[in-house]
Amino acid sequence: MAVYTEVSADELIPFVETYNIGSVLTFKGIAEGVENTNYMIQTDRDRFFLTLYEKRVKPEDLPFFLGLLNHLSDQGFPCPKPIHDREGRDLRELNGRPAAMVSFLDGLSVRRPKPVQCAELGQGLAKMHLLGEGFTIKRQNALGPGGWRELFESCRGSMSKGLPQMPSLEEVISNELDNLASNWPVGLPEGTIHADLFPDNVFFIGDRLSGFIDFYFACNDLLAYDLAICLNAWCFEPDGQFNITKARALTNAYSTVRPLNAQEIAALPTLARGAALRFLLTRLVDWLTPVEGALVKPKDPREYVEKLRFHKNVKGPSAYGLD
Amino acid sequence: MAVYTEVSADELIPFVETYNIGSVLTFKGIAEGVENTNYMIQTDRDRFFLTLYEKRVKPEDLPFFLGLLNHLSDQGFPCPKPIHDREGRDLRELNGRPAAMVSFLDGLSVRRPKPVQCAELGQGLAKMHLLGEGFTIKRQNALGPGGWRELFESCRGSMSKGLPQMPSLEEVISNELDNLASNWPVGLPEGTIHADLFPDNVFFIGDRLSGFIDFYFACNDLLAYDLAICLNAWCFEPDGQFNITKARALTNAYSTVRPLNAQEIAALPTLARGAALRFLLTRLVDWLTPVEGALVKPKDPREYVEKLRFHKNVKGPSAYGLD
Repeated sequence: MAVYTEVSADELIPFVETYNIGSVLTFKGIAEGVENTNYMIQTDRDRFFLTLYEKRVKPEDLPFFLGLLNHLSDQGFPCPKPIHDREGRDLRELNGRPAAMVSFLDGLSVRRPKPVQCAELGQGLAKMHLLGEGFTIKRQNALGPGGWRELFESCRGSMSKGLPQMPSLEEVISNELDNLASNWPVGLPEGTIHADLFPDNVFFIGDRLSGFIDFYFACNDLLAYDLAICLNAWCFEPDGQFNITKARALTNAYSTVRPLNAQEIAALPTLARGAALRFLLTRLVDWLTPVEGALVKPKDPREYVEKLRFHKNVKGPSAYGLD
Repeated sequence: MAVYTEVSADELIPFVETYNIGSVLTFKGIAEGVENTNYMIQTDRDRFFLTLYEKRVKPEDLPFFLGLLNHLSDQGFPCPKPIHDREGRDLRELNGRPAAMVSFLDGLSVRRPKPVQCAELGQGLAKMHLLGEGFTIKRQNALGPGGWRELFESCRGSMSKGLPQMPSLEEVISNELDNLASNWPVGLPEGTIHADLFPDNVFFIGDRLSGFIDFYFACNDLLAYDLAICLNAWCFEPDGQFNITKARALTNAYSTVRPLNAQEIAALPTLARGAALRFLLTRLVDWLTPVEGALVKPKDPREYVEKLRFHKNVKGPSAYGLD
């Protein structure tokens, strides 16, 4: 949540001149993004968003991320559109960092989404899944089921110290890993998923979806797993209660654009458990291995213990409004 | 250099609706400002700049700062213009912090100013001094000559530990404090000064001055002392050399708008020594007492030891281009 790489006006102006986007009137470092350095640039033509990729993003993944944004925005999907420089390149370098200029997406992220916004999200997600079909670059989901056990092993030793009030956590996770290893669905439709579609990463103007941002976890995986992530990220209230009205709005709106097949519907409780476990595990790692000088307080992993418990107890997909 | 107080869309939108400035299209926390939290707000009408005042700004000083910005911008001076809410208030509260909305000033700060930009600065500074004349609220300069000895006493004990390579620093400062106490000019024209007009705080569009920002050290003091601060902040090259071409551009352009009197010209070397000592002392305090979790690396105080040495050796005001 900071500017990790400083860019001065003397450095920015010649860089912007290599694009056909007008002259810079102002630019500001943005306190947003845990991973990268971001600048808002206002030219005499429009606003733009410049990202300098820091250490946590692998340079070899950038053609996938930028390719996906090109692919989606070219088809009119509301996401940042990579700006190509005068030589046609979208991936550049600035101050020693890989850098990309994209269109600036107006809109606000909501902290407490309304059902109508969950429906907008569902439709948008389904559209993104359909439009992603022709995208040919692939990226494995490093944080998918195949990576969960390793995440667990990396932090199980320090778990009791970091969260002494949850002595059974190790057992809960271990059991869930075994369960998901046996029951993870096979044969469901796959494609390009966002994989991190939290309210922070979705913009609205009023109740209308204005776009998705932050595609840096996007990868190839089960499409319905993306929906299961959204059920976790959008449909629980701050007090921990699951809001079925929001879930119904989300899943039903999704289905109007891309109907879920019977296997996907049946697998939804398992996928939701997997998504809860994925965020539980990565939050645990961040919680137990605080980064020196980190500017962002790690999020409490216990929220996802509770979400996992909810999904374990559901009777079936009707719990998510899929009747 | 961060967002200290988070503001969500749910909190910002009703706040913005109490102003007559249109509806919010986007807002971003800005990684700028050591002291306060700043947001850029884009509405369907214009851009605005929202500041939440953090602990280091005294609430009782805010009527002075906002009053000064009102006074200057009402007369067409290029500085942020406080926006009044529908009830006419410019000082508000948001998320437990005093808060003010101001107009957004386009422009870029330069790292290595050109002589023509130093001339623009000089004219702008002189205009600000003249326009400040009718401003009736007063604020003492807490970091003026009367406060220097106290700053020195607060850090002299730890000085040798913090800067072991400069064993004579304590003596240099002590002697300079004695010298300035004896020779500080009296009877020079006083008024409202900016007191922190570093290149960071001055915007240009091309070579043209577009405005001054960050008035949070503004106070009543000798007008020529403000010019002496600019000589220190604008006229030394990164290698430590004093650039008389820039100094001449600055002082002569100043004089075309507000002619310096003979006493001010004669006092300039002493004022420049005082300004160098002021920034040496505050940098020393920041250097020797690092703040836990600070997001900004303290600036090296030794730069100002060298600047002080330069001013001690000048033959007279001609060193600053005042012949």
